[in-house]
Amino acid sequence: MNYKLMLRMMGLTLLVETLLLLAPLTISLIYREDPTPFLYTILPLALVGFGLSRIKAKADFFFREGFVVAGLIWVVLSLFGALPFWFSGCFDGFADCLFEIVSGFTTSGATILADIESLPKGILFWRSFSSWVGGMGVLLFTLAFLPKAGGRTQILVQAELPGPLVTKLVPKTVQSAKILYMIYISLTVLEILAFSAAGMPLYDAVVTTFACVCTGGFCVMNASFAAYNTTCQIIAIVFMILGSINFTMFFLVFTGRGKQVLKSDELRFFLGAVVIASALLFVSILPLYDSPGTALKDAVFQATSIISTSGFCTTDYNVWPPFAHVVLVLLMFIGGCSGSTAGSIKCGRILLAARSCSRNLLRLSHPRAVKVVKLDGKVMNEEALNTIYAYFILFFLLLGGGCLVVSLDGQSLVTSFTAALGCLTNVGPGLDGVGPVSNFSAFSDFTKYLLSLMMLIGRLEIFPILLLFHPATWGRS
Amino acid sequence: MNYKLMLRMMGLTLLVETLLLLAPLTISLIYREDPTPFLYTILPLALVGFGLSRIKAKADFFFREGFVVAGLIWVVLSLFGALPFWFSGCFDGFADCLFEIVSGFTTSGATILADIESLPKGILFWRSFSSWVGGMGVLLFTLAFLPKAGGRTQILVQAELPGPLVTKLVPKTVQSAKILYMIYISLTVLEILAFSAAGMPLYDAVVTTFACVCTGGFCVMNASFAAYNTTCQIIAIVFMILGSINFTMFFLVFTGRGKQVLKSDELRFFLGAVVIASALLFVSILPLYDSPGTALKDAVFQATSIISTSGFCTTDYNVWPPFAHVVLVLLMFIGGCSGSTAGSIKCGRILLAARSCSRNLLRLSHPRAVKVVKLDGKVMNEEALNTIYAYFILFFLLLGGGCLVVSLDGQSLVTSFTAALGCLTNVGPGLDGVGPVSNFSAFSDFTKYLLSLMMLIGRLEIFPILLLFHPATWGRS
Repeated sequence: MNYKLMLRMMGLTLLVETLLLLAPLTISLIYREDPTPFLYTILPLALVGFGLSRIKAKADFFFREGFVVAGLIWVVLSLFGALPFWFSGCFDGFADCLFEIVSGFTTSGATILADIESLPKGILFWRSFSSWVGGMGVLLFTLAFLPKAGGRTQILVQAELPGPLVTKLVPKTVQSAKILYMIYISLTVLEILAFSAAGMPLYDAVVTTFACVCTGGFCVMNASFAAYNTTCQIIAIVFMILGSINFTMFFLVFTGRGKQVLKSDELRFFLGAVVIASALLFVSILPLYDSPGTALKDAVFQATSIISTSGFCTTDYNVWPPFAHVVLVLLMFIGGCSGSTAGSIKCGRILLAARSCSRNLLRLSHPRAVKVVKLDGKVMNEEALNTIYAYFILFFLLLGGGCLVVSLDGQSLVTSFTAALGCLTNVGPGLDGVGPVSNFSAFSDFTKYLLSLMMLIGRLEIFPILLLFHPATWGRS
Repeated sequence: MNYKLMLRMMGLTLLVETLLLLAPLTISLIYREDPTPFLYTILPLALVGFGLSRIKAKADFFFREGFVVAGLIWVVLSLFGALPFWFSGCFDGFADCLFEIVSGFTTSGATILADIESLPKGILFWRSFSSWVGGMGVLLFTLAFLPKAGGRTQILVQAELPGPLVTKLVPKTVQSAKILYMIYISLTVLEILAFSAAGMPLYDAVVTTFACVCTGGFCVMNASFAAYNTTCQIIAIVFMILGSINFTMFFLVFTGRGKQVLKSDELRFFLGAVVIASALLFVSILPLYDSPGTALKDAVFQATSIISTSGFCTTDYNVWPPFAHVVLVLLMFIGGCSGSTAGSIKCGRILLAARSCSRNLLRLSHPRAVKVVKLDGKVMNEEALNTIYAYFILFFLLLGGGCLVVSLDGQSLVTSFTAALGCLTNVGPGLDGVGPVSNFSAFSDFTKYLLSLMMLIGRLEIFPILLLFHPATWGRS
């Protein structure tokens, strides 16, 4: 392991975080709030970052280091990122601060805050901004590491990045990252403009966009999206869907290859899931509503919000019938498309797993049939399928284990299960005690740390964080 | 497909069912009850069975036919087996009759009966006897088909049965089946004797043994095992554990190779799970009890009952804390050992899946490390691992889909989820509305048919029943 290079990369990332903190600092100065929470954080952060970034290291860097450093960077960023919350005095303890910032960086949107509106605007800006930054980080992470781990960003990055990373990262990945970030920033600007045009105050438009375009889910209003008008809610639906689509699709559209987009199996699966889930929810909740239009809007909003792993809400879906709850829980498992900022298992993996099962079933009855598994007409290699299988099994093992530990707090089975699921999938809220009108504050500190860890594990597609705990990672090779 | 041979095999199986029905008929005559439900069933059954068994067919039979016929036989046996319930007039409709007999044949033990004790002794005998017969069927099924589908009975059946089945089945499998049945019958006799010695009335001892030795779960008392004394409950614990162990282990012990038993990874995992789960339940429920002894007994009984996929109960665990509920639900997913009558995912599959994930994780950090997955020191081939992966994914897809449809009935999320889970894993009862003091009668007929199908799917380890629905199964090859 090239520890020196790892430390240097962490140092550089912390320096970036220092720069990022200037934004909420500015906001707190504009609104004449106490800027000390940010100042107290920026000083040690800049110092540690500068120190680590000065470490001289050879530039040979393999896949394993990349994976491990990605995990560590998210942890360190969160530890420092929690400090402004801690210094603000608005939070009950460090576990709460860490939970909230991890929820931000991982674009989960789970909160321990009951009265969000009482917080200073600078602090709330940092909270939402962290989601937006996390979304950027996820795009880069997906780009750099997932091709090897069974994900799919191959249209932009043609090579599968074998061997030393750094050298190969430069020409293609940096260019790809620039394209992705341009798309991301364009979406952000468009959404801010749309929200403003629909009558949302500018501050709200900016911070809500930060949490929406990254499919995060933080809101600055206690009532979440129910505080905004229907036009705003429909705008959010559109941008949550856009945020859940593989960003490569936008690139294809802009470069005149829109036809390829329509052929994407994953996109069709995702949009199909949104439509079917919305229809099922609509039929299920219609008897509760006076107006079919409102029922439809709420059904589509919640379906989109959950499958995109945002977690915004326009209504208390805890009072919906059990059938609607099952639909929502199943949507939590699905998630958006790969190559987007959405979390959870993701449509591509589910599609490939289902096709692979169908292939295996066929093999039982026709043993000599050699059949391959395809996505978008391309043959998937067996190694990638194996990684997807491993992902599934680890996902369910982590979910079961997480649910077991969370249930020690004594909250109901549904609360414990959906809390663990909401964190692992980065949806955020769940049902019952962690439903739309509740929050995660009732859990013990221990559980909050565990749930923070689960958000990180889920965000980094399980493998990097688990590798941090695997003894072989730290051995010689 | 050799349809003629398939029909002939079904005919022979129906003739066997005719003979089996003579047992409950005798019981109803002994207790001077109305024998007509059995007579009405036996006549058409014998006729159809005899007719089909006379079909002349070539003896060439491949794996696909075997798989498909196994699925069909279970369905047809259940359709005829439901008739005595139907003719008895004690059930509310055919959906109830079918649900109850499928629950028997699949050794699930889920019931739609509220007042069990009011039923005639002959009918209750058939209900429990069907579990015992189902257990025998499962042992044969495991022996014949699972080696190919990733299961493990290789110690008895050395060959993996490639190519035409019938010829190869004869020498080794028939011998193996005889050994398995001798073990099964010995366990049955021992348990009847033990129950009788502990003070259980003979009729109760026999029918309870039928449902216990096969890890079924049907009881003839409304209070389930709470109706019997502590000694009887402890005897049940012992036999539920014995029934969940790979039957090959008994064979090894009887032939003086007991040391090999201790080396079985799967057995150690299973026993470890029983001990850990019992301990967790004990600690969790202790505050609810006056006597630590009773708490320990109930904890061990419920842990054993659920992991063995029996589903008996000695107490209403619905009132236990959420942590205990999560433990029980996780046990539902685990199940017993392969090569036993227990259902669910099974310890062997979980162990192999976990080891395979660990291997894949290692591969990410050490790409050049070639590592194999072992069980009991033997290298597993990748094809078998792939089938296990496919099993897992299909299991969770079926569970999600089943839960969704069941929730249409409007029962709570926990009820819908554990009903689907209880049926797919063959545990039987679940939590909340399908908990120990409740039953499945509140569901609609449609849901009862669906849950019956899920019990069959789970019992036959998913693939055979799904193959029945796969278009390629019925095509030419």
